[in-house]
Amino acid sequence: MRRNLTGNSLIMKPIQVGLLGIGTVGSGVFNVLNRNQEEIRRRAGRGIEIACVADLDVGRARSVVGDAAQVVADARAVIANPDIDIVVELIGGYGIAKALVLEAIAAGKHVVTANKALLAVHGTEIFAAASAKGVMVAFEAAVAGGIPIIKALREGLTANRIQWIAGIINGTTNFILSEMRDKGLDFDVVLKEAQRLGYAEADPTFDIEGVDAAHKATIMSAIAFGIPVQFDKAYVEGITKLGAADIRYAEQLGYRIKLLGIARRRTGGADGVELRVHPTLVPAKRLIANVEGAMNAVVVQADAVGTTLYYGKGAGSEPTASAVIADLVDIARLAAADPEHRVPHLAFQPHTLDEARDALPVLPMTEVVTSYYLRLRVADEAGVLAKVTGLLAGADISIDAVLQREADEVGGEGSTHTDLIILTHETREGTMNDAIAQMQALPTVLGPIVRIRKEELN
Amino acid sequence: MRRNLTGNSLIMKPIQVGLLGIGTVGSGVFNVLNRNQEEIRRRAGRGIEIACVADLDVGRARSVVGDAAQVVADARAVIANPDIDIVVELIGGYGIAKALVLEAIAAGKHVVTANKALLAVHGTEIFAAASAKGVMVAFEAAVAGGIPIIKALREGLTANRIQWIAGIINGTTNFILSEMRDKGLDFDVVLKEAQRLGYAEADPTFDIEGVDAAHKATIMSAIAFGIPVQFDKAYVEGITKLGAADIRYAEQLGYRIKLLGIARRRTGGADGVELRVHPTLVPAKRLIANVEGAMNAVVVQADAVGTTLYYGKGAGSEPTASAVIADLVDIARLAAADPEHRVPHLAFQPHTLDEARDALPVLPMTEVVTSYYLRLRVADEAGVLAKVTGLLAGADISIDAVLQREADEVGGEGSTHTDLIILTHETREGTMNDAIAQMQALPTVLGPIVRIRKEELN
Repeated sequence: MRRNLTGNSLIMKPIQVGLLGIGTVGSGVFNVLNRNQEEIRRRAGRGIEIACVADLDVGRARSVVGDAAQVVADARAVIANPDIDIVVELIGGYGIAKALVLEAIAAGKHVVTANKALLAVHGTEIFAAASAKGVMVAFEAAVAGGIPIIKALREGLTANRIQWIAGIINGTTNFILSEMRDKGLDFDVVLKEAQRLGYAEADPTFDIEGVDAAHKATIMSAIAFGIPVQFDKAYVEGITKLGAADIRYAEQLGYRIKLLGIARRRTGGADGVELRVHPTLVPAKRLIANVEGAMNAVVVQADAVGTTLYYGKGAGSEPTASAVIADLVDIARLAAADPEHRVPHLAFQPHTLDEARDALPVLPMTEVVTSYYLRLRVADEAGVLAKVTGLLAGADISIDAVLQREADEVGGEGSTHTDLIILTHETREGTMNDAIAQMQALPTVLGPIVRIRKEELN
Repeated sequence: MRRNLTGNSLIMKPIQVGLLGIGTVGSGVFNVLNRNQEEIRRRAGRGIEIACVADLDVGRARSVVGDAAQVVADARAVIANPDIDIVVELIGGYGIAKALVLEAIAAGKHVVTANKALLAVHGTEIFAAASAKGVMVAFEAAVAGGIPIIKALREGLTANRIQWIAGIINGTTNFILSEMRDKGLDFDVVLKEAQRLGYAEADPTFDIEGVDAAHKATIMSAIAFGIPVQFDKAYVEGITKLGAADIRYAEQLGYRIKLLGIARRRTGGADGVELRVHPTLVPAKRLIANVEGAMNAVVVQADAVGTTLYYGKGAGSEPTASAVIADLVDIARLAAADPEHRVPHLAFQPHTLDEARDALPVLPMTEVVTSYYLRLRVADEAGVLAKVTGLLAGADISIDAVLQREADEVGGEGSTHTDLIILTHETREGTMNDAIAQMQALPTVLGPIVRIRKEELN
């Protein structure tokens, strides 16, 4: 980036940007930069121009940018272009995107990316390369779309020791869960509807299995606690096995079920970080329980500020573009500062990350402490509840609430089985695993026990 | 601020901070900086030290900081101290605080302040002085306490043309309104309770009359729309005249009443900015309608990102300290960049503000467009509703809903009067003023008409 030495912001050269990939998000970036160029220039003090676009589909790229930018098929031509200050990677995935990001860094370009998968898995390598080269890699768009959550965590809450983060960070699954609850429908039915409406992709695996949320939770855990990204240590459970019945029972008990990405600092015992994505019962009165449809929200608990929440659109062309452009402006500013004065990629100075990983390891799931919703299909006979609660008491798991349905309501008239729903207080996941195994072995427990984790988030 | 030229962040000198005033917020700043010093250093790349504290109550100051910092009675001794990089003003008010902030700027110090009143009224003068001197004035703590809303508006949403902002930005009034609704009590009763609990001050005027919220809304309007702060043009209406009956009727119609600070860009007609604080009906299903107690929340509607919301504690020792310290770290970073690369005080380059004020003036209240809740105490006789709705139709104000109570329910058995509640669609405030005057003149309208504005916030 050229350093302007005149002190006159009116004549600063516009930032020259190269886009790699101009699909949904890339088009959004181009359109928003065009539409709001005056507004953005009034804020940034200089223009931001997309000088060059690479896309394998040159025709599509041309139809978006017209004659406003050079269009090429070869991404490496953008990286090699000496006029380009910042490369925006919007290709996605781990493959070619990784190679191109590393090449852009090696060429001395700053990089903006929306690629959560790439950063959650290869972030350590990429940030190290960027630090060595003295360039920035910005990624506000990688987590929760247009919500400026990375900036909030990295800068806004910089005074705080962050205790936990819990987020609805995948719009597809939140849409599906909202529909299941609203309409009392099962997962498969709603998924098809979501695909028809464009809220779910043709291959929805990454979304519905929780992988996308886990990528984002991994990135947030690093920024919150000053540890490296460690996606391989994340616990990932999606929503495919959730039944309409559990959503209904949760509602009756005052809870909603959300797919949460959770990162929690544990101290006083097995010190470490919980990093997990799974369906979660949340008290219905919490704001985050009322985040519906494809919207995202992230709750952060920190020692000085207390609870804060950030809500908005987690995906889509222009919301994501909003985050990409904010990164472009940030880079245009901080590029003028000495590298050691810039905001570190993961909020904390990079030379401190390895030590933090040792002091605060990502805990295995058996060491996680949470509370639980259990649903047991049981024989409708005397003594079942006593046996089940006896086993829990023996494991030192205390019970918060019990809901026992009438057999007729569950299995129809004359039914010989019923549903027993138990809410527990907090316990170790390993302890709960053992208790579930014991309950499952009871002859009066008729089907697989459903276990959903519960967080009070207070 | 000394510029570090070695490129080695490990040996950067700690930032030296001087505090003016060490009451609730100042103590919080001191305590959080102490408690989290390791965490903050790991983020900022250098330490942040409170070197010097000025407070008229030297004993109190000493009891907070012990021997960790110099304590003086004279704020000017802090400003004159050549070792101090940043002066934090936590005195409050327009008087001595203004003089000290200007003196600190003149002495070449960066300034952090939580003083919303000062900035809303004298911001233009203060920011001009800071720009001329090449120093920064940061004020995250001035709006919504610990919520990083200034950063979100100024940097996170930089790509956007912001359309409107609506915020619960005064915790005292939100606490009072929450209690009035929960317990069905009248304003006076709850105010006393709030004072007893410390949620309201002994002289609560600035809070309950909406002045504090208007200061904050004024600052946000400037940052959102690129106009100067113009507190004198804000419309300010507090909650002192709200009755429990209106809160109850609003609830029956699916709304909650919140004191909102609103800044809205109007285009296509009388271009300008609406800047207003008043009790507002909000649909009960909106997240912001569910923000209870002393909590704050700000909703921002912007063209690219859509709706985002920011929620957290709007006041208190450590939440406010969280924002002050975030500003200290930001200044430590951006001080190393050329002034023209820093984030402008009010988000937009200062030389563009005057032109924007002319193009986008703050509109008089009569030009505001909103919808309304009206409550009329009327005689319980035939034809009243027809007369009232006829007047509204004549003024071209369309009706969204009508709720007519049984006379017995309102005035007791045998009552000859009842309440007529009308929700309207959007209209000009001036038009509504005329219509209310006409309705008020009807002999069947028995008492003063209650008018509360309504916003759908979608």
